[in-house]
Amino acid sequence: MHPLDRLFKPKSIAVVGASTDEYKAGYQMMYALRAFPGELYPINPKSDDILGFKAFSSLEAIGKPVDLVILTIPAAGCADVMQQAGEAGAGAALIIGGGFAETGASGRAVQQDLLTICRKYGMRMLGPNTAGFANPCVGVTANFNPWIGGVPAGSIGLVSQSGAMSLVLSALIHTQNLGISLATGVGNSADVGVADVVEYLADDTGTKVIVLYLEGVIDGRRLYDAVRNAVKKKPVLFLTVGQANIAEFAVSHTGNLIGSYQIKTAALKQAGAIMANSSDDLIDAADLFSRTRLEPKENPGVGLLTGQAGPGMVIADYLRSKGILIPELKPTTIEKIRQALPPLTYIKNPVDTGRPGPSFPSVLKAMAADSSIDILITFLLDEPAVVEPITLFRELRDIRLPMIFGTSGFPENIQPVQKALSVMDIASFASPDRAAKAVCAFVDDAKAAYRFVRYEEAVPSLPNIERLEQTPDEAEAKDILGRIGIPTPRRVVCRTHEEAKRAFSSLPQPCVLKILDPAVTHKTEAGGVILHIKTEEQLANALERIDRIKVQGNRRYLVEEMAPDGLELIIGATNDRSFGPVVLVGLGGITAEAIKDTTMRLAPLGLNEAMDMIAELRGKSLFEGWRGSPALDRESVARAIVALGLFMVSHPEIKEVDLNPVRVCEKGLLALDALFAL
Amino acid sequence: MHPLDRLFKPKSIAVVGASTDEYKAGYQMMYALRAFPGELYPINPKSDDILGFKAFSSLEAIGKPVDLVILTIPAAGCADVMQQAGEAGAGAALIIGGGFAETGASGRAVQQDLLTICRKYGMRMLGPNTAGFANPCVGVTANFNPWIGGVPAGSIGLVSQSGAMSLVLSALIHTQNLGISLATGVGNSADVGVADVVEYLADDTGTKVIVLYLEGVIDGRRLYDAVRNAVKKKPVLFLTVGQANIAEFAVSHTGNLIGSYQIKTAALKQAGAIMANSSDDLIDAADLFSRTRLEPKENPGVGLLTGQAGPGMVIADYLRSKGILIPELKPTTIEKIRQALPPLTYIKNPVDTGRPGPSFPSVLKAMAADSSIDILITFLLDEPAVVEPITLFRELRDIRLPMIFGTSGFPENIQPVQKALSVMDIASFASPDRAAKAVCAFVDDAKAAYRFVRYEEAVPSLPNIERLEQTPDEAEAKDILGRIGIPTPRRVVCRTHEEAKRAFSSLPQPCVLKILDPAVTHKTEAGGVILHIKTEEQLANALERIDRIKVQGNRRYLVEEMAPDGLELIIGATNDRSFGPVVLVGLGGITAEAIKDTTMRLAPLGLNEAMDMIAELRGKSLFEGWRGSPALDRESVARAIVALGLFMVSHPEIKEVDLNPVRVCEKGLLALDALFAL
Repeated sequence: MHPLDRLFKPKSIAVVGASTDEYKAGYQMMYALRAFPGELYPINPKSDDILGFKAFSSLEAIGKPVDLVILTIPAAGCADVMQQAGEAGAGAALIIGGGFAETGASGRAVQQDLLTICRKYGMRMLGPNTAGFANPCVGVTANFNPWIGGVPAGSIGLVSQSGAMSLVLSALIHTQNLGISLATGVGNSADVGVADVVEYLADDTGTKVIVLYLEGVIDGRRLYDAVRNAVKKKPVLFLTVGQANIAEFAVSHTGNLIGSYQIKTAALKQAGAIMANSSDDLIDAADLFSRTRLEPKENPGVGLLTGQAGPGMVIADYLRSKGILIPELKPTTIEKIRQALPPLTYIKNPVDTGRPGPSFPSVLKAMAADSSIDILITFLLDEPAVVEPITLFRELRDIRLPMIFGTSGFPENIQPVQKALSVMDIASFASPDRAAKAVCAFVDDAKAAYRFVRYEEAVPSLPNIERLEQTPDEAEAKDILGRIGIPTPRRVVCRTHEEAKRAFSSLPQPCVLKILDPAVTHKTEAGGVILHIKTEEQLANALERIDRIKVQGNRRYLVEEMAPDGLELIIGATNDRSFGPVVLVGLGGITAEAIKDTTMRLAPLGLNEAMDMIAELRGKSLFEGWRGSPALDRESVARAIVALGLFMVSHPEIKEVDLNPVRVCEKGLLALDALFAL
Repeated sequence: MHPLDRLFKPKSIAVVGASTDEYKAGYQMMYALRAFPGELYPINPKSDDILGFKAFSSLEAIGKPVDLVILTIPAAGCADVMQQAGEAGAGAALIIGGGFAETGASGRAVQQDLLTICRKYGMRMLGPNTAGFANPCVGVTANFNPWIGGVPAGSIGLVSQSGAMSLVLSALIHTQNLGISLATGVGNSADVGVADVVEYLADDTGTKVIVLYLEGVIDGRRLYDAVRNAVKKKPVLFLTVGQANIAEFAVSHTGNLIGSYQIKTAALKQAGAIMANSSDDLIDAADLFSRTRLEPKENPGVGLLTGQAGPGMVIADYLRSKGILIPELKPTTIEKIRQALPPLTYIKNPVDTGRPGPSFPSVLKAMAADSSIDILITFLLDEPAVVEPITLFRELRDIRLPMIFGTSGFPENIQPVQKALSVMDIASFASPDRAAKAVCAFVDDAKAAYRFVRYEEAVPSLPNIERLEQTPDEAEAKDILGRIGIPTPRRVVCRTHEEAKRAFSSLPQPCVLKILDPAVTHKTEAGGVILHIKTEEQLANALERIDRIKVQGNRRYLVEEMAPDGLELIIGATNDRSFGPVVLVGLGGITAEAIKDTTMRLAPLGLNEAMDMIAELRGKSLFEGWRGSPALDRESVARAIVALGLFMVSHPEIKEVDLNPVRVCEKGLLALDALFAL
């Protein structure tokens, strides 16, 4: 038995605060649970009977431990009841009401007390501040919005930081004739959080796809691990907010900071989860995944057969714009199709039948037999006199590829067809666009799974570097980079003009003179970096200019060799409060910085994954020999990212590393500046 | 009477090729038209009666002119019938079948013959190669897919380059409980094209919103003008394809080249049309616009009231990420709301009621009375026991602001509510995301209309410059730029080293030496540009290096002053085969070019519109004083764009102008290179 089974698959439930007053949550909860097939105990000292269930004066009065205690009482009374629940041997508690961490410091303290009680008695707790959950597979509707109990049992496991969004998504699931294995809010996530439920659903054999709605993620690293493990077994889809500034509203909701949207989405994608852009897209993708999943593949091929050109074009355009492959069919396949269709139709893939007719199934069979095709989409306007979809797919039942159906017509005509297809396990969508979006998520999942195979590589080890006790200056930071294998320019630290002069003559020229002072973080803006020094006279002038910058303590200089020409990048790392060590790469130079062309990954990561980070940059063509210049050494960049990631993992005392710029050349790179923050 | 009324509002129709064979288009068409309230004449010499209508042997046999002749016969017979239709005084023709321009040159010739006949007799022609149209307002279903006749009469005017997409969109309109004033495909657009129908619908009093589906646009400039005029009267929405490479498929569909996606979308947005990203989004926006439209406003304020935080967050995050303003409510409004709601809810806007209750209408009224709010969105989970939406909106009927309702629940419960709200002219959407997307389009329309007011400005005039007979070299091109007011560096054209030396000493130093030869278009890559020349010796070396480049004809040099530091841009123009003169601005330098950060507009355009082009660049912050550098002279860039646009309009012989780079400084700019192509 899984530890969360007493919460999500209880055999006995007590409702503390159960009420006969229709306007109270304690009534709503009892009403929602009225069909619960296990034992249901309303707790209310003032009533004998609530909705036909015998009421008890206290948890103790039941006389035996229950699996789940639901609290529908004000915040102030919760700690007492939790104590009683623990003493009575309850397995889990669900706290619906608000008034805890989302309200500020005192609420946070009360919430912490509840958690302490849970830990003491080995109870699990869902909430507080959540709508609850529903598990139709075992007949539990523990939700203050009873209609969620009408969603049939199915294979979609849904976990949401917002109770209302669990209802929004459940309603869409129901609208699509699908069902849930579990739908739960987690509210303030005091104990059971999204990661716990993801782990639970990953192990749940009835769940075929996991669907997440996230706001601010508290323990991002744990969620990342949970998702990464889950996607080995089943697809994980997510929808999240935070691309715009809604921070204040979000804190008022669940008490969690919204965090960095870029880190959150990068981490979940890195873990293999597929991001949806809307609730509707999320559930359409879940529809498809609840039936089938593609094998891991680098670039699966989509075969598209359309009865009408326009909708086919909409689908093909969307898929190609998202990097989905619609490969040209093999000549033998094209020849088979040519014989089945009238002349002048487009048959290379997409295949446009012109006016669809009796040859439709044979064309689909020919496409399915083509080895370049891994998934088939069919679009047909509702014209049952021409092609009847149910008959069509019955005829195609020997095809082993995933098949998706798109159609358009009046709901009263197409919905019965869609229901019938759903029973045949064919996902169907009532517009070409919806079919295309679902297929895109479907293929992206197979691509992500394929990448994981490539990512299972030996991560290099780093020399052991002692914990940093104080912020290193640029020269010290560069020494550290050198030890972890990130090249830096040759340099000499100098305290006097004389030392600088000696350093200048010892280095290849031209040289760079920099101020060396950890307090001056924007050296260039302060006039503390002088490039292209070719003569001693120029050096003397440069030293004089630098001496005009005010410093505290002893003045020091850094004399460095000039780096060769190349492309400027930013490589950085941060220690995110939720997700831990994160590495970043982006194009450098002021233009690129203004455009913010960057990609991120959680560290540690291997070389292949770091190479993929570079491939995701909008300006990636700059690495590939731009306008006749030589191709640049991407692998040196990837190696630097990997090394910096490993370094961050073993140095939690570092808050941020900023290598800006890093110059990458035809062969190798040099980190020209290095800024560490503890 | 509008010239297209005999096509789209016919009082009499003849169907040539009418048939009793259910598998023929001539049957489908008769079946679709069986309820036509006017006169319907099947033309078939072998039948007396088709579907209960007396058949005629020929158009002539009818004995009087009909408004609309529909041809459901093969391509080969169409010219003869068109000739007869013209002689019989028909007003318009609709040709369903394919086999014309979409099949290649010979088909194109046949199509041209049909057009010649139309022009001769003053007939209009829809098609060929189209599904036809439906106009339920006058009871015409002239479409080979008869179910489109089931879409009720309404206020959405729909025109599609694909017949099937007109059906896809009509089905979605019906699904939303909406209706159409016209839904038509245009097929090959031999005569009546999208622009004609847009003009027609703009004048049609029954049409409140125009919806377009576009593939390759033939006469883009006319469409631009038609849309720009239409949006003065009613909103125009569009969906298009072509962001990915689907060119070959598109040509096979309607015979039209797909053209530049960037130019097409930029032109339609410039004309004030609102782009949708999917069929579903398109019809959701049309739903809202079919009821109401915002007054032009620079930045309308959205008030968002939600019964549940999560969905409110989804809506707020989407809107803010699209630049939609959700302003903080005024203190007096907040105070009113505070009194109406329990403590601890978020009430600045979005307003989150916590658990919604009886105060819901008063909160909405308070928000509506706030002068910063122009449009109200309300989201409520389906909980009629808590707030009943129909009662709610009845209570709010005095609110004059546009109101949008979002909800989630089981379709069997919420759809009856949505239907009732639709009758009350409240648009409602069954997910928070759909409500948010529709509102975004709604606000964007008001913003576009506001921009038009700003764009009504005097466009400066240019000096008259004679038609160019041959491609100018760089120096000649720069002379032309100088005459139209785009500054260039001081320069001297030289034929000998001696001349170059004289030029060098006459210009401020350092100088630039360039090869001057129209055949060398990539001068830098060829080694034909040498910067930073400070001494005569450096000049001599530079001349020698340039002399190594092979040229045909006489060798010439350009000696120029060096430009001051600044930001590099690209300013360009092209003469698009469909849309005519187009101007472009983008960030320059290799990084920016690789990232392709550019915006486009059709020319001519005024200064305010050119300023908006700059504001749309991703890297626009570079103009605003990046990292302590001074703000750059955006207006000089806008002036250059305006001048180049006017020049392109008066010089149709020019195919392309490429000013790359243009260097913009704190004050003014300099075009450092100029390439003209005729």
